[in-house]
Amino acid sequence: MRGWNFSAGPAALPEAVLRQAQEELPEWGGARASVMEVSHRGKAFVAMAQQAEADLRELLDVPPSCRVLFLQGGATQHFAQIPMNLCADGQRADYVVTGHWGEKAVKEAVVYAGAHVAASSAASKYTTIPPRETWDIDSGAAYVHYTPNETIHGVEFHSIPDTGDVPLVADMSSDILSRPVDVSRFGLIYAGAQKNIGPSGLVLMIARDELLQRNPRPLPKIFRYAEHAAADSMLNTPNTWGWYLAGLTFRWLKEQGGLGAMERRNREKADALYAAIDGSDGYYRNPVEPSARSRMNVPFTLHDAALDAAFLEESEDAGLLALKGHRAVGGMRASLYNAMPIEGVRALVEFMRDFSRRH
Amino acid sequence: MRGWNFSAGPAALPEAVLRQAQEELPEWGGARASVMEVSHRGKAFVAMAQQAEADLRELLDVPPSCRVLFLQGGATQHFAQIPMNLCADGQRADYVVTGHWGEKAVKEAVVYAGAHVAASSAASKYTTIPPRETWDIDSGAAYVHYTPNETIHGVEFHSIPDTGDVPLVADMSSDILSRPVDVSRFGLIYAGAQKNIGPSGLVLMIARDELLQRNPRPLPKIFRYAEHAAADSMLNTPNTWGWYLAGLTFRWLKEQGGLGAMERRNREKADALYAAIDGSDGYYRNPVEPSARSRMNVPFTLHDAALDAAFLEESEDAGLLALKGHRAVGGMRASLYNAMPIEGVRALVEFMRDFSRRH
Repeated sequence: MRGWNFSAGPAALPEAVLRQAQEELPEWGGARASVMEVSHRGKAFVAMAQQAEADLRELLDVPPSCRVLFLQGGATQHFAQIPMNLCADGQRADYVVTGHWGEKAVKEAVVYAGAHVAASSAASKYTTIPPRETWDIDSGAAYVHYTPNETIHGVEFHSIPDTGDVPLVADMSSDILSRPVDVSRFGLIYAGAQKNIGPSGLVLMIARDELLQRNPRPLPKIFRYAEHAAADSMLNTPNTWGWYLAGLTFRWLKEQGGLGAMERRNREKADALYAAIDGSDGYYRNPVEPSARSRMNVPFTLHDAALDAAFLEESEDAGLLALKGHRAVGGMRASLYNAMPIEGVRALVEFMRDFSRRH
Repeated sequence: MRGWNFSAGPAALPEAVLRQAQEELPEWGGARASVMEVSHRGKAFVAMAQQAEADLRELLDVPPSCRVLFLQGGATQHFAQIPMNLCADGQRADYVVTGHWGEKAVKEAVVYAGAHVAASSAASKYTTIPPRETWDIDSGAAYVHYTPNETIHGVEFHSIPDTGDVPLVADMSSDILSRPVDVSRFGLIYAGAQKNIGPSGLVLMIARDELLQRNPRPLPKIFRYAEHAAADSMLNTPNTWGWYLAGLTFRWLKEQGGLGAMERRNREKADALYAAIDGSDGYYRNPVEPSARSRMNVPFTLHDAALDAAFLEESEDAGLLALKGHRAVGGMRASLYNAMPIEGVRALVEFMRDFSRRH
């Protein structure tokens, strides 16, 4: 029997998506072969790939000025590849750092950009979001980069920052598709698939075509986003299984009522869990400033860390999986991506109440 | 019903592997989740990943001085990333070009290396392999790169060239694991998975650790092979589904009797098809010099190209899939990777005889 899977990523997929993938794994459509065994340039795969993009565009209302790319390498590769493609040598790029992933993005950028930390909440141990008016943004910067949701610290932006004419670049790996978002406000959005989209090994990118055409330095074709765009993400063989599962997930999201419906559910799920934490008289604790709390990743500690082992063992026995927190913050973490139903959160809340009574 | 799938890649997977993946797709082992839904750093996934590497090492008798990496980006990304990691700026690297993929490898390398075509069979339209004594290899070159099997032209090396002290780098995407190979003769072997290993989106690399430590230029960590090696290929989230399927394939290869057994089968399959072509009195024709013919990819033309459409339509109706040749050479192509059983080749040969009688 499947458990309630709170993994931060690779994370739970919608069960309906998994069941369909299972059913058609040996024979996909009329292909007489698995979707993994057909040419990415064949009619059947191309039709599927185009439908996936069309569904994504519909879900996020992506403007025609933006390209949608299905890439590889994880978000981490694009920490490096974005400055490769968008910055002239040493050109300033501004980074707003609100957690571990933002820190990594800066480090990977320094070879190609004058990566500048325009704002950081490190002093608060990443429990806050620095007010926009404190950001040191240069009008000549190649872009402003931020991480709308930090999975380890459980910190999320609940509005899109205004960066004027400087293009906004967002690592949306952990909250893409969790609610409607005004894509027209962004220059470039990218996301590793393994949280809200599909399996690991796939990266989704949504970017204004003009940005992709900057081409500030000589690069091999394979590192150049403009080449991937010109080839409709088939410059070389894409991750075909990942693209297919992403397409199933996009369709599932449409069947659920789209991103407005997902936002209502995700808010309900997060509210239920934060209420249980805040209402526990200090037995459980989440350190994040309430206005910056993430709906996707809820880290929490127990009042006595000596109980952590018992909590993890008993929750696992109860079918509540992968609740161990990241070592950087300790304690527990419950990730509540789209594929987690409210029933799973209710089961967790019930378990937490019961655990606190018994221990 | 599944067809006989002659796709050049993404290519057929062993049916036993697909059936197992299907069975355990929603619940993998005792995980109560799909293998796609668990942390790559969790005990269960790490144990699977290590077993996959151990099985591969056993199959290929990989020396302890070599690292095995599970990467992303397709072989094409590594056309660029290999010179990034192995060449000082502009340092000479020698390329032996025997087809389309070798050509691409040179083009992607030029930004980081003094990529030098040491030998080419372009003049023969890539139907031959240039004799070793004609290669213009520099003893100070960073490496010599070649493509043991060219999928489009159907040209394969049947012995490993001697490059003395210059490390040999091989894009083995399309014949890795098709026969035993002396890994100790190579500096670095890499292969896109989607032909003889697993699904697309995974790249296997086997490389001498000392080569990976060259680090000739500043690079983001994510582009540095030494960092991937130090992190056991978990520098960032790997393609977990691809790694898992590769592991199933490695186990399947061991059950088949290992690479010696695969070589016997692959030779039998290729011999049967070439015999049918050569014995057709010119009805079918393969242009490759016999000693350089590939056991993996067999391109062939019909004596009258006007029959191509009928051949493709009728073969597809007969359950013989994906026989259309690459536009660069025209005609047909049958790819006979490990997952294609001799029965599929017999069905193709029978169809070819019947077709030639009828047309």
